[in-house]
Amino acid sequence: MEDMLERLPEFESSVRTYSRSFPVVFSKARGAEIYSIDGTRYIDFLAGAGTLNYGHNHPVLKEAVIEYFRGDNIVHSLDLWTKAKYAYLDTFDRLILKPRKLDYKVHLTGPTGTNAVEAAIRLARKVKNRSNIVSFTNGFHGVTMGSLAVTGNAKFRTAAGLPIMGGAFMPFDNYFGGGVDTLAYFRKFLSDRSSGLDHPAAVIVEVVQGEGGINVASTAWLQGLEKICRTHDMLMIIDDIQAGCGRTGKFFSFEHAGVVPDMVTNSKSLSGYGLPFSQVLIRREHDLWEPGQYNGTFRGHNPAMVTAARALEHFWADDTFAEETRQKEMIVRKGFLGLVETLRNYDIEAEERGLGLMRGIDVRSGDLASKITVEAFRNGLMIETSGHSGQVIKCLCPLVITHDQIEEAVQILSRSIARVLG
Amino acid sequence: MEDMLERLPEFESSVRTYSRSFPVVFSKARGAEIYSIDGTRYIDFLAGAGTLNYGHNHPVLKEAVIEYFRGDNIVHSLDLWTKAKYAYLDTFDRLILKPRKLDYKVHLTGPTGTNAVEAAIRLARKVKNRSNIVSFTNGFHGVTMGSLAVTGNAKFRTAAGLPIMGGAFMPFDNYFGGGVDTLAYFRKFLSDRSSGLDHPAAVIVEVVQGEGGINVASTAWLQGLEKICRTHDMLMIIDDIQAGCGRTGKFFSFEHAGVVPDMVTNSKSLSGYGLPFSQVLIRREHDLWEPGQYNGTFRGHNPAMVTAARALEHFWADDTFAEETRQKEMIVRKGFLGLVETLRNYDIEAEERGLGLMRGIDVRSGDLASKITVEAFRNGLMIETSGHSGQVIKCLCPLVITHDQIEEAVQILSRSIARVLG
Amino acid sequence: MEDMLERLPEFESSVRTYSRSFPVVFSKARGAEIYSIDGTRYIDFLAGAGTLNYGHNHPVLKEAVIEYFRGDNIVHSLDLWTKAKYAYLDTFDRLILKPRKLDYKVHLTGPTGTNAVEAAIRLARKVKNRSNIVSFTNGFHGVTMGSLAVTGNAKFRTAAGLPIMGGAFMPFDNYFGGGVDTLAYFRKFLSDRSSGLDHPAAVIVEVVQGEGGINVASTAWLQGLEKICRTHDMLMIIDDIQAGCGRTGKFFSFEHAGVVPDMVTNSKSLSGYGLPFSQVLIRREHDLWEPGQYNGTFRGHNPAMVTAARALEHFWADDTFAEETRQKEMIVRKGFLGLVETLRNYDIEAEERGLGLMRGIDVRSGDLASKITVEAFRNGLMIETSGHSGQVIKCLCPLVITHDQIEEAVQILSRSIARVLG
Amino acid sequence: MEDMLERLPEFESSVRTYSRSFPVVFSKARGAEIYSIDGTRYIDFLAGAGTLNYGHNHPVLKEAVIEYFRGDNIVHSLDLWTKAKYAYLDTFDRLILKPRKLDYKVHLTGPTGTNAVEAAIRLARKVKNRSNIVSFTNGFHGVTMGSLAVTGNAKFRTAAGLPIMGGAFMPFDNYFGGGVDTLAYFRKFLSDRSSGLDHPAAVIVEVVQGEGGINVASTAWLQGLEKICRTHDMLMIIDDIQAGCGRTGKFFSFEHAGVVPDMVTNSKSLSGYGLPFSQVLIRREHDLWEPGQYNGTFRGHNPAMVTAARALEHFWADDTFAEETRQKEMIVRKGFLGLVETLRNYDIEAEERGLGLMRGIDVRSGDLASKITVEAFRNGLMIETSGHSGQVIKCLCPLVITHDQIEEAVQILSRSIARVLG
Repeated sequence: MEDMLERLPEFESSVRTYSRSFPVVFSKARGAEIYSIDGTRYIDFLAGAGTLNYGHNHPVLKEAVIEYFRGDNIVHSLDLWTKAKYAYLDTFDRLILKPRKLDYKVHLTGPTGTNAVEAAIRLARKVKNRSNIVSFTNGFHGVTMGSLAVTGNAKFRTAAGLPIMGGAFMPFDNYFGGGVDTLAYFRKFLSDRSSGLDHPAAVIVEVVQGEGGINVASTAWLQGLEKICRTHDMLMIIDDIQAGCGRTGKFFSFEHAGVVPDMVTNSKSLSGYGLPFSQVLIRREHDLWEPGQYNGTFRGHNPAMVTAARALEHFWADDTFAEETRQKEMIVRKGFLGLVETLRNYDIEAEERGLGLMRGIDVRSGDLASKITVEAFRNGLMIETSGHSGQVIKCLCPLVITHDQIEEAVQILSRSIARVLG
Repeated sequence: MEDMLERLPEFESSVRTYSRSFPVVFSKARGAEIYSIDGTRYIDFLAGAGTLNYGHNHPVLKEAVIEYFRGDNIVHSLDLWTKAKYAYLDTFDRLILKPRKLDYKVHLTGPTGTNAVEAAIRLARKVKNRSNIVSFTNGFHGVTMGSLAVTGNAKFRTAAGLPIMGGAFMPFDNYFGGGVDTLAYFRKFLSDRSSGLDHPAAVIVEVVQGEGGINVASTAWLQGLEKICRTHDMLMIIDDIQAGCGRTGKFFSFEHAGVVPDMVTNSKSLSGYGLPFSQVLIRREHDLWEPGQYNGTFRGHNPAMVTAARALEHFWADDTFAEETRQKEMIVRKGFLGLVETLRNYDIEAEERGLGLMRGIDVRSGDLASKITVEAFRNGLMIETSGHSGQVIKCLCPLVITHDQIEEAVQILSRSIARVLG
Repeated sequence: MEDMLERLPEFESSVRTYSRSFPVVFSKARGAEIYSIDGTRYIDFLAGAGTLNYGHNHPVLKEAVIEYFRGDNIVHSLDLWTKAKYAYLDTFDRLILKPRKLDYKVHLTGPTGTNAVEAAIRLARKVKNRSNIVSFTNGFHGVTMGSLAVTGNAKFRTAAGLPIMGGAFMPFDNYFGGGVDTLAYFRKFLSDRSSGLDHPAAVIVEVVQGEGGINVASTAWLQGLEKICRTHDMLMIIDDIQAGCGRTGKFFSFEHAGVVPDMVTNSKSLSGYGLPFSQVLIRREHDLWEPGQYNGTFRGHNPAMVTAARALEHFWADDTFAEETRQKEMIVRKGFLGLVETLRNYDIEAEERGLGLMRGIDVRSGDLASKITVEAFRNGLMIETSGHSGQVIKCLCPLVITHDQIEEAVQILSRSIARVLG
Repeated sequence: MEDMLERLPEFESSVRTYSRSFPVVFSKARGAEIYSIDGTRYIDFLAGAGTLNYGHNHPVLKEAVIEYFRGDNIVHSLDLWTKAKYAYLDTFDRLILKPRKLDYKVHLTGPTGTNAVEAAIRLARKVKNRSNIVSFTNGFHGVTMGSLAVTGNAKFRTAAGLPIMGGAFMPFDNYFGGGVDTLAYFRKFLSDRSSGLDHPAAVIVEVVQGEGGINVASTAWLQGLEKICRTHDMLMIIDDIQAGCGRTGKFFSFEHAGVVPDMVTNSKSLSGYGLPFSQVLIRREHDLWEPGQYNGTFRGHNPAMVTAARALEHFWADDTFAEETRQKEMIVRKGFLGLVETLRNYDIEAEERGLGLMRGIDVRSGDLASKITVEAFRNGLMIETSGHSGQVIKCLCPLVITHDQIEEAVQILSRSIARVLG
């Protein structure tokens, strides 16, 4: 490994980032565990930043994809129709859309989240014939130029090399603390014809902001936002790339609030197996795309559709999996609240928050959060930070994690806090 | 299949396009052949628009990826270091860069071509602290907002919903026909401080324009362009997404001309197996990225790095494969020139052109080209059109195609021309 | 006049607006009175929307400009040095800048307000090497493309034909009513690196928003804003085009708050005689313009500099004039508060507000405000409305108005209210 | 004067430019002569860069404006209807539009050229519902952000602080020398749907490029351009700000070519007396402005309309004045061709060109042109340079200049050339 660690930085661009936080070479993984090439085991609370809801290399999905490859089934096909595509779309319709009474068409975009987001906001502009899209403080929707318009992070925005056009930012739920109704602010800007806010075609919002620091939009806020969209003739786009596919305890994160978005973007855990895959869900009446108006070589990646369909059959045919997730939520939550107590003993007013297994501990300092996660990695837990100053320790563990693994991870965190602060 | 053909348009967004030209459901494929679910065989001259240079489901690559999956090796890892990444980067360095005396660092971007293009032009802006990027007429570099700035097609540009900023277009080689030196035009715009052309940070160019209609930049033109870039302090970016990975008879399309670009984008056939994968090659001194300034969930997709490394070992350890490609080029060319003769009998002044196995027949009419390819599909050949009005019948057959398959395809085209025009 | 009223709409573009509210043909004017060609007299509370602070055709200025013309002195000279320019700059320095301890250089721009605003924000971008400019809700700074970026009115923004780039809007003082500190909001957006607010080069603000509906920034708010600018390394630009030149009871509107902006834009009443004239005041250390980097044929209009210098000598050599303005403020205010009482009798909760002789009555309805001003015009008072929905009756009467004229105007308004609501 | 010359640079922003080329203080002027405050006389071949077609302080116009002021007629009135406006519009219609069979409505914009240009291109976008405007190499149309989109000079464009959006540049007539048909180039870009040229709403063009270096569009080229506009559904905007009002020997510069633009911008000499004034002429059917959608405090400046109407009566009631201009053109041309001969003796291949009294000598070097004009100023002639590198000595002398003054100026130039090169 020493030789590799020396040569990799010579090969790879300085843009690399996770290999700086976790500077080892990994080789194997299964479920909630990942191993470096020298055999060191880590519990994975990173989980591909939400890509591995069903864990690493789930055996059921593995068999499905190997069988698919073995049989010389079609791997790459642009957006041709394939048997795998049919099976996926049929399964998605049957197990996900129909039971939830959602009537969406599926746009299979290039297989990255930002491709899906660009498609969604472009279509929204077309539907409403207006260009402005409202996003929210601390929102993250991708870094290609179109998505940057709705992504708040200065790190990405200043790197664009161009002023960024086409978006405007409103405060997310609770942005100014509990007493301030941020939707009232948005409403005022919308109703005042001289506010400087150009009439938006759409809003795009995450139900739980992952990169933004595990900020959860309340049910009341989301319902209020939906109402504003109807009143002011704007589409409501929910970016469910990180929070979707069961992460919050339901398939779509917005199910908790009972809102029905006009568009939904999915990616990350959609394939279930870590394969690149993305889609946009579009209300039937908004599907105004002309043939080929948005394209991409790897749209509708067949192996991903195979594992995606298999994952739906395996995890979403009934409510068992979601129910288990909600139980694990309780365990993580209890553990994290214990850590908050521990932190309080060191005079740190931390906050635990989240929805389902998308949870975080805000320790109020990026420096402290970083020290804790570095120490945790030394002790066998891979966990990252998020938030505008990296102040939130962020748990996106696989949903298939065991109770024991959760307990072990919490104890590592507890020890790490003690070492850093003790 | 009937039932599927009825339900698929209900499931999938109207943006779908190839399923309109080739309206069957496919299931199996191997090498240069693809099969619909009812067993109909088609020779594949589409080949994923350049993604399947090594054919469908190449057995060597198949074994590699199955073995990788079977062993619970890491599938998804964001941009962590993995054994698969090391093996890929080391192999790429050893078999591709070093022998060609190229000293590039590798930026593993999100696994779509447009992600790589956005990264390249963004870094160029950063390196030169200027925003304008020059692209060329009929150039295609992707459809996310950043890439649209350098993509000429009105179909995509008008769908953007925003004016497109950051690019300017100059005429490609031979744009006005043989007598006009288009570089002189570019030089004049650059040297005149009141021409309206803002000093570009970079040019981005395809050696062979695929979507643009198989337009080949001559060696003299590319060398002239390289010189202009040096004289006027601009980076030269070669987008080798479609023309790279051996398509033109050499690994990089620009090797024919002996130019050395500052950046190169790769995708499509890079994984060799149709798996999503992209990279940008960057001169060491231009690697000014700060950690994490450009990101993406599926960057450095491990299974794709496994097949990519295996493909390099299998096809690029010596010159055999490239040599065979150049021989097949002769066969395709001969066949296509015969078709040009046939077309002449119907008073159509067609032109055959291309480089390596990236070839086309310009039949001067999108309507005619469409009729011929529709008829060819009925007769067992999948082949698409390209060019600003779809006037070019475009061959991007797998490089592993057999001589017999080429002959068969040419005969199908010949018969199709006869039926359409006869 | 009948014939003229018929032909004028045939000659002039439909963009005309004031001739719709006041559909007569005017010919003569003096002080605070204006006459139509049939001799009807109107008290002028419009006063060129703040251009005629010293009234129509002030005799002292009239003599100055006639004498200047009579003597074949230079009228037009681009930005050459002229005797008139020297006299103006010397007088401005002596009577305005020096006594206020302000050390500005003068940029004589094209003679419209929007030219001055474009110059100011362009220079701010240059000074800070950042592009974003923060403006405030209901701010109006002109309609050329650069100024539109900082102008909030949807009427102008939607007419641009392009998305508008380069500005962002924050809430003005009191935007959400008394309880909400809008600067806290701005501070939060600035300090959060993921808020979506790109670090601004500058803020541009009106001390009293004229078009916006006579919204007055409080001293505390302006001082707070100045402090934010210092803390966050942004320039503070005060647009004093409408509120400057004595309108608020001091030469510059920002003198009340004791803030010292980095740049100031002046126009409208600057020439004193209604002649086109504009300038930007720039802190000496920020004057980074290269020669000729911003130009315009009519910059530094000589006759305007003659009347401007004469106006400074006549009105600003001592504090008498400003003192008289503040006395008249009391009279207008008393009259308007009476009108507010009257409106309350009709169950309308109107509000009187303003600074100096820039005052308005917010009657909470654009329709009502319009009816009252239409009736007032029938009764001999020319007065306009402003605000996002035209809900504010806006008084910008000449500062040279007499006490009797004020009383008469208030009585006309009183009668008009009675007729409209009675 | 010494004291003034010392203090002026302390007062005025470093953006000043003409005072660098002609570093004296001017005070008086009449006709084609201008005087510094110490009485030095200069022949004025600068003439306000085309603003003083009727010379400095023309006695007839002077009387008109003094009489207007003397009578307490309305000076400032926003866009209210005034007697002066009626008189101007009626006169313009009677003496200019009707005799030329032109049916335009008049949009009185803010009184700078760039205000008129911004209005014209904004309306064109509205009429065609497209945003792109095509301009031409070396075109200059103003420096506010909207006009910058169609202005080619890097000096201004790089100072914008933002990438400039909304325009694209095509080669002007003769841009590549005599053999190349630049309209063929434009046609090719328009007809190719993948050229990267977004379908323009309009073209904006100068018949003679003033700032661009006295480049004259030929009749054939303008007629070809008009035809392209019709074929491709684009408006044709002629910017006649510098070349209009008789400068080329006809009132509008486009009359020579017999084309009929959709819009015309006028400013500079429109008032006749150097007073700020601008307008856009709009085909009746394109006047889609809504009331007040474009505004400006000094639009329709009354004193300027008074002198403008008087100038039309005095100079344009019959063809005498235009005829005299064309005679003077012959004299200037003969003199300049002599200078070209002189330059040839020094091995400089200069070129004389122009239309009417808008003429220049291209000496192929900005450095040489600058030396000659500096020397000329020492000898009593004020004349500037233009062109992308300042290589053209540019004559825009007043049209009222006498034959003797022309001869004297030519002799000064001749002597200056001899001194610089001798």
